[in-house]
Amino acid sequence: MEALSIIKIGGHVIDNEHSLKQFLNDFVLISGPKILVHGGGKIASTLGLKMGIEPKMHEGRRITDAATRDLVVQVYAGLINKSIVAGLQSKGCNAIGLCGADANIIKATIRPIKEIDFGYVGDVKHESVNAEILSGLIRIGLVPVVAPITHDGSGQLLNTNADTIASSLAVALSAHFEVSLIFGFEKKGVLRNIEDAESVIPEINGANYEALKVEGVISGGMLPKLENAFAAIRSGVKKVIIKDAGAIAISEAGTHITR
Amino acid sequence: MEALSIIKIGGHVIDNEHSLKQFLNDFVLISGPKILVHGGGKIASTLGLKMGIEPKMHEGRRITDAATRDLVVQVYAGLINKSIVAGLQSKGCNAIGLCGADANIIKATIRPIKEIDFGYVGDVKHESVNAEILSGLIRIGLVPVVAPITHDGSGQLLNTNADTIASSLAVALSAHFEVSLIFGFEKKGVLRNIEDAESVIPEINGANYEALKVEGVISGGMLPKLENAFAAIRSGVKKVIIKDAGAIAISEAGTHITR
Repeated sequence: MEALSIIKIGGHVIDNEHSLKQFLNDFVLISGPKILVHGGGKIASTLGLKMGIEPKMHEGRRITDAATRDLVVQVYAGLINKSIVAGLQSKGCNAIGLCGADANIIKATIRPIKEIDFGYVGDVKHESVNAEILSGLIRIGLVPVVAPITHDGSGQLLNTNADTIASSLAVALSAHFEVSLIFGFEKKGVLRNIEDAESVIPEINGANYEALKVEGVISGGMLPKLENAFAAIRSGVKKVIIKDAGAIAISEAGTHITR
Repeated sequence: MEALSIIKIGGHVIDNEHSLKQFLNDFVLISGPKILVHGGGKIASTLGLKMGIEPKMHEGRRITDAATRDLVVQVYAGLINKSIVAGLQSKGCNAIGLCGADANIIKATIRPIKEIDFGYVGDVKHESVNAEILSGLIRIGLVPVVAPITHDGSGQLLNTNADTIASSLAVALSAHFEVSLIFGFEKKGVLRNIEDAESVIPEINGANYEALKVEGVISGGMLPKLENAFAAIRSGVKKVIIKDAGAIAISEAGTHITR
């Protein structure tokens, strides 16, 4: 099977013009079929405040009311997505910006209300990725740039976690390609000691993961990222790496996630 | 050659939730390959004011500074485009939202500064439409929904007139399809008497156009729309109609533009 690289970048790269430029320069150098999945960044909150939309949080997680949903659609699927696409086009990379509604590539279900109503938030499974149409776009030479917005198939747009989108795309496309999934972020990998930027754990697998959690080495926002990484590697994705988004071209650096 | 319908809708349809819903219901009923081109609407100005972006005008034409450009990218290529796509998907129409940067479908040149600097405004010619990739998307069953944003190929996004985009797409795609171009707006067609909604001129051609201008029947915003219509019909487009966006399914109603 042909190789496919799926790269995810988050807010830390997007919010910094220099980092984003550097990342895009590296991204165009990746040979073969590829997909870029991007997250949001601070710009949505900044614009929201200007427009009088107060961020609503519950235990550190954003609640997406209708106004916030419209805001993130504008910023993620509009400004950020199209700026990245125009940047890639200027470097000769034939990018096409998509959200989950476009060509029905990612259908989601609105998160069920339990203790708390998170609002217009979509949960995604790899079964709800339209791998056929994505493969079709890739095979005609296009590079999908995917914004973290999905739809429910009934006309509602939904705010969706970009790590989960990247992981779901990777699993679904493993039926068509040998997929490498790279979570790019602001550190060199998963760190053993958060104070030491060089203390990268070279490999996390089922065996040492539990111990790292118990020791408290892995906690907070790294937990859902690792859950997404394990979901991918256990469902047919060939390679999963968590690494510095600024060193995407150096293929072996970072923390490799294995079964 | 296969038939292709290109429908353009403007702000009057987009700004009214009921009109938009009705239009989308009609649009999905159009058989065969089709493209929807949409304009902006008042929502960009409303949001701009909330964000402290004052509309800047020169003789009735908008000046697009950097803040306004970012705003229209958010609203046109983000919120409006993706809401239409999600709405069409909910009706079983496999829509894909695109701006000119996506898959490099429409490259533009920034409008040259003469007496006035219009800012980030793109001028488009049919030669700068990538008809091959658009045909490719249509042939795999997709329905492009095109936002009035283009790019210059050097990373800049540009605000672009939606009528011109529709006309340029129609001309470029005439090499691949037998194209019908429909400009949908809030009236039943070009009116002989602006006070009489039923006074639709059934046909405007090269011969009666000059007379209608001299009589003052055609003036203001209708002039550039007709220039776009004539540019299309004189460059290989099979049929051009200016008509009520609420009656898109009634194919012969409206004002037909002929050579």
